[in-house]
Amino acid sequence: MSYGNVMIGQSGGPTSVINASLVGVFKTARDAGCKTIYGMRNGIEGLLQERFVDLSDYIKSDLDIELLKRTPSSFLGTCRYKLPHADKAPDTYARIFEILHKLEIKYFFYIGGNDSMDTIMQLSEFAKKVNSDIRFIGVPKTIDNDLACTDHTPGFGSAAKYIASVMKEIIRDAKSFPSDSITVVEVMGRNAGWLTAATALARSEDCNGPDLIYLPETVFDFDKFVEQIREKKKHTHAVIVAVSEGVKTADGKYVCEANKNTNIVDSFGHKVLGGTALYLADALADEFGFKCRGIVLTTLQRCASHLVSRRDITEAFMAGADAMHAALRGETGKMIVFKRISDHPYSIVTDVMDIREIANKEKCVPAEWIINDGTYISTEFCNYARPLIIGELDPFMVDGLPRHLFIDK
Amino acid sequence: MSYGNVMIGQSGGPTSVINASLVGVFKTARDAGCKTIYGMRNGIEGLLQERFVDLSDYIKSDLDIELLKRTPSSFLGTCRYKLPHADKAPDTYARIFEILHKLEIKYFFYIGGNDSMDTIMQLSEFAKKVNSDIRFIGVPKTIDNDLACTDHTPGFGSAAKYIASVMKEIIRDAKSFPSDSITVVEVMGRNAGWLTAATALARSEDCNGPDLIYLPETVFDFDKFVEQIREKKKHTHAVIVAVSEGVKTADGKYVCEANKNTNIVDSFGHKVLGGTALYLADALADEFGFKCRGIVLTTLQRCASHLVSRRDITEAFMAGADAMHAALRGETGKMIVFKRISDHPYSIVTDVMDIREIANKEKCVPAEWIINDGTYISTEFCNYARPLIIGELDPFMVDGLPRHLFIDK
Repeated sequence: MSYGNVMIGQSGGPTSVINASLVGVFKTARDAGCKTIYGMRNGIEGLLQERFVDLSDYIKSDLDIELLKRTPSSFLGTCRYKLPHADKAPDTYARIFEILHKLEIKYFFYIGGNDSMDTIMQLSEFAKKVNSDIRFIGVPKTIDNDLACTDHTPGFGSAAKYIASVMKEIIRDAKSFPSDSITVVEVMGRNAGWLTAATALARSEDCNGPDLIYLPETVFDFDKFVEQIREKKKHTHAVIVAVSEGVKTADGKYVCEANKNTNIVDSFGHKVLGGTALYLADALADEFGFKCRGIVLTTLQRCASHLVSRRDITEAFMAGADAMHAALRGETGKMIVFKRISDHPYSIVTDVMDIREIANKEKCVPAEWIINDGTYISTEFCNYARPLIIGELDPFMVDGLPRHLFIDK
Repeated sequence: MSYGNVMIGQSGGPTSVINASLVGVFKTARDAGCKTIYGMRNGIEGLLQERFVDLSDYIKSDLDIELLKRTPSSFLGTCRYKLPHADKAPDTYARIFEILHKLEIKYFFYIGGNDSMDTIMQLSEFAKKVNSDIRFIGVPKTIDNDLACTDHTPGFGSAAKYIASVMKEIIRDAKSFPSDSITVVEVMGRNAGWLTAATALARSEDCNGPDLIYLPETVFDFDKFVEQIREKKKHTHAVIVAVSEGVKTADGKYVCEANKNTNIVDSFGHKVLGGTALYLADALADEFGFKCRGIVLTTLQRCASHLVSRRDITEAFMAGADAMHAALRGETGKMIVFKRISDHPYSIVTDVMDIREIANKEKCVPAEWIINDGTYISTEFCNYARPLIIGELDPFMVDGLPRHLFIDK
C-alpha cells in the first residue's frame, strides 16, 4: 500500500535535537510505506528554488538514524524566510503548490518555532482554498520554549541541560580565584526567559547556582541591579549573575542597545541581540573597580549536541513520529503538542492543536515563578524543568571527536 | 613507616584535569604511608595566610577520587600570586618555611604553569640556602601547552578536545543558514597558539574544519586577513575563522588593544586579553556588509569537565603520582615532564627536569607547522595533537547535571 510522498523542512534557529524530529518523521513515514521522503534544503526558501533531497540517499541504515539523532544543527539546512500572506503573494503560493504537486507530495512537515508555525498556518489555509489534499503539520522546535499550547518544546530540555551544566563549571572556575569578581553570563532568550531561568537548575548539593537571575519578563533597572549585586557581594567574593540577552529597561529598550550594532534585524524582522553581558560587565567594572567578566554562552546553547538531554531527544523523535501519524489519519493545519500528565513520575502524552492557536504567539515564564523582586526563579520552575534535562545520549566518538551525519560538510 | 607530611597547591588558570593531578599526588602519598596530606587554599597566597585543609577530610573514598577527577577548576582554589625573589622578600620566605616546618612538611607540590614553576624554583633554591630538606616538585598544568622541556602539558588535551568538538558544532550551525556569513571564533592563548591550532583537529570526514586559522606566532595584518577571507568566500557562503586571543599586529600590539579595557593586567603582570573576535567581526561587517559573528569560547576552554580527554585525565593523574615518586626518591627543584616514545602507537614516559630549564619560559608552535602564509596548520601538528584528545571520561550525572566534589560551593 502506498501513502504518497512526504516533504520535510527545518526552519529558524537550529537546536541540538531538531534532527531527532527529522528522523522521527522519516522513520515513521518509511515504516508506514510512504514512497519518497524528501527533505527541502534550507526550508521553504530552498523549496521555492526546487532544492531538495531524497532523504533515503542519506539515511541508509538504523545506524544513520542514530547518528542523525546525535547531529546538531539543521541537517537539511535552515532559513529565516517569512512566507508572505497568500493575498499579497499569490504567485509564491502557486509556485509552492506546483512544486509539491509535481513531486506528488501528500504530507508536508515543517519543524520550527512560532514563525515557522505561521508558514504551516498559511499553507494549510491556502490548501483549503484551492482544494488541495496535502496535509500540513507543524513539528515544534525551539530552545526558547516559547510556543503556546504545549507543556514545553523539543530543544528546550537539551539547551537547559547544557546551560545549567556549564553554569556549574563557570561558577567553579570563578569561585576558585581568591580575588573579588563579578561574572555576568548571558543566556539566549529574546522575550521569554525560559533558558535564563534554567540557570537556576545549577543550584544543587554541590553548587549554590547563580546568585542573581534576570529574565526579560521583568523590567531591568541598572541602579537596582548594582544594589542587588552589592548586597550579594557581602556574602561571596565572586558574584555570579545570569542575564537574558533580551533584558529591557523601563522604556522598552534592550539593555544591549546601549551598545552599537543593534539596528541589525534578521529576515523575520527581529532585532539581532547580543552584547548584554559585555556591556553590563564593563559598566559594573566602572562601578566596583574590580574584575567583572562577561561570558556569552553563544550559539553553543542551540548546537552543543555533545551534551543533550536523552529525554529531549526521545521526545523530539516522538514529536516527529506523531506528526506523521497525525497526517496519516487526515489531520492538517495542526501542530504536535505535549501535555503533561504527571510531574512525579514525569509523564507526558502528545496531542494535536489547531495551528492558529500557536502561530506567532509567545509563551513567557509565569510571573509567579519569578521571585525575589525579579532576581531569582522559584522551585516551581525547577520542578517543571528538571525532568526535561534528565538522561544523556553519548555522541558517537571518532578519533576523539563527536561524529555527525552531513549533506554539506 | 612514616614519610612525613605533604603540602599540595594549585596555581594559575585552572584546567579540567588539574584535580586529576591533585588526586595523583594524594593517592600516591597516602599509599606510600605519608602522614598528613595538606592542601593549601588558593596556592601560595593562601599558605601565607595559613589557610590549608587536611585533604583526607574531603577525599574519603575511592569514589571521591573518581569524582575529583571529574571536577573542573582548582578544588583547592587557585591564585595568581607572584612570589618575589628571595633577596627582595626574605621575610616572605622565612614565613613560608616557618609554616612548612610547623606542619612538618617534607614534600611540597605545586600544580601549575610557567609562573608557578618559578615559585618551585625560588622555593627549592631558598631551601638549599637554608639547608632545609623539604623537597619541592612542580606538576605541569596548563591548557596553553606552552611549558618547555615536555612533549605536552596536562590540561592541553582536554582543552583541545573541547575546542575541536565545539568548533565542529559551531561550523554546522553557521553552515546551516543559507545566508552569507563570517564567524570569527576566539580561542585562548596569549603568545602560544597551541589551542587555536587545535581547531584544525575539527577537519575530519564529516567536517572541513575552520577555513582559516590565525596564531599569535604569526604577525597579523588586517588587510591581508580581509583578502584571505574574500578568497575563501568564493568557495563557501559561510566562512569560519579561528583566531587566537593573542594575535598581534606588526607593531607588537594585540589586535584586541584596538578595543578598550586592555590596560588591565593580572597579578603576574600579563595584559588581560579578550575582545579580539568581537572587534574583528565588527570590522569585517563594515568591510563585507553581511552577517559577521564573533564567538568567544570563554573560560569553558579550561573548565568544561563535561567533555574531557580520558588520556589527558590519565596523564594528569600520572604526573601527580610521579611527582610524589620523584620526591620520595629525593628529587627537588624538578618538574615532571612527558617524553614521547612513539606516535603510532602513541606512547609516553615521564621524567624529571631541572626546574630552571622550565620556569618563565614559553614554548610556541613550531614555525614549520604554521602553513599557507600563516593561515593554517600542518598535518604534523594534527599527528602530534590527535593522540592527546582520545577517549572520554563521562561525568557522574546527578539529576541531569555533572556532579562535582567541593570545599566551597
